[in-house]
Amino acid sequence: MPGCARILGLDPGSLRTGYAIVQIEHHQAAYLAAGVIRTQGSCLAERLREIFTGVAQLAREHHPDEVAIERVFMHRNADSALKLGQARGAALSATFELRPKVFEYAPREVKLAVVGTGAAQKAQVELMVRRLLSLTAPLAEDAADALAIALCHAHSRRLLGLASVAAGASS
Amino acid sequence: MPGCARILGLDPGSLRTGYAIVQIEHHQAAYLAAGVIRTQGSCLAERLREIFTGVAQLAREHHPDEVAIERVFMHRNADSALKLGQARGAALSATFELRPKVFEYAPREVKLAVVGTGAAQKAQVELMVRRLLSLTAPLAEDAADALAIALCHAHSRRLLGLASVAAGASS
Repeated sequence: MPGCARILGLDPGSLRTGYAIVQIEHHQAAYLAAGVIRTQGSCLAERLREIFTGVAQLAREHHPDEVAIERVFMHRNADSALKLGQARGAALSATFELRPKVFEYAPREVKLAVVGTGAAQKAQVELMVRRLLSLTAPLAEDAADALAIALCHAHSRRLLGLASVAAGASS
Repeated sequence: MPGCARILGLDPGSLRTGYAIVQIEHHQAAYLAAGVIRTQGSCLAERLREIFTGVAQLAREHHPDEVAIERVFMHRNADSALKLGQARGAALSATFELRPKVFEYAPREVKLAVVGTGAAQKAQVELMVRRLLSLTAPLAEDAADALAIALCHAHSRRLLGLASVAAGASS
C-alpha cells in the first residue's frame, strides 16, 4: 500500500449513490471529484443499471486504485437491506474491471476518522470534509458521505503506512 | 416480445448462483446450459467479483435477449437480505452491457408455471424441469431453480403472445 493512490469512495443507495474521487500523494488527500448518481428508472433493474453505468463511467475516467465503501451492519429491515444490497452489488461490480482493492469501514470508523467522534452528526461530517479538503461550496449529503469514506480510507492507509515504517525500523 | 429469444435465468446467492440458458423457438423452450457459480473468495468483494465475472462470461458466450430472475419479497432477516441483494446486484450488473430486458417472477409464480402448484417442493421442481426439457441427468438445486425461472418466463411469454394474438384478432 504505497503513499500515492487514487481512491474511489462509494455511498450506494437504490435512489441516490454518493461518489468521491480523492488523490493521495505522500499521505495527503486532495479532492478530485464528488457527486451523486440519482436514479430515475421506474423499476429495480433500470435503477441498478443507472448505478452500474454511472460508477463504471467514473472508474473509466479516474482509474481508482482502491475503493472504499461503508460496511453495513444490522439494517433496520429486510426490505431496505435488500434494496441497499442490490445498489452496493451494482456499484462495486462497476469497478471490478479495474481490479481495485476494496476496503470496508464501519459508519462509526468513518465519523471517528473525519470528525474525531464516532457519534458525529451529518452536518459535522460535511463541515469537516470541506475543511479537510479546502472546499468552499456546500456538498450534497451523499457526496459528503462518499468523501468522508474516502478520507477515512486515506487516514487508515496513513496509519498502516506508519505501522509498516515502525515495523521496518524495529526489524 | 417475439416467439424466438434466448433467456438467461438467474438464481443469485452470495455462495451459490444458479444460472440457466434456454432458447425459445416458436414458443418451445430448449435447454442450452445450466449450472452453478460457487464463490470461494474469503471476503464479500471477492465473492461479488466471482459472481459478476461468471455471469458476464455466460452473457458474452450466449448473448441472452431477456433475463429472468426471482422476485424477492420479505426476507427472513436483514443480514441475509443484504447478502442476497448484493449477489443479485452483481449478477444483474453483469448482463447490463447487452441491455437485455429483465423480468421478475415471484417464487410462487415459478412453481405454479413449472409444476402446476405454487406450493411445490424443490424435488418436484427439479423433476418437472428435467421432464419439460428432456434432461436425464439430475440437476444441482440452484441450476434447477434457474431453469425453472427461465421456463416460467418462457410460459409467461407464451401467454403474453397468445394475449397479443387475441387482442389483434379482436381489433
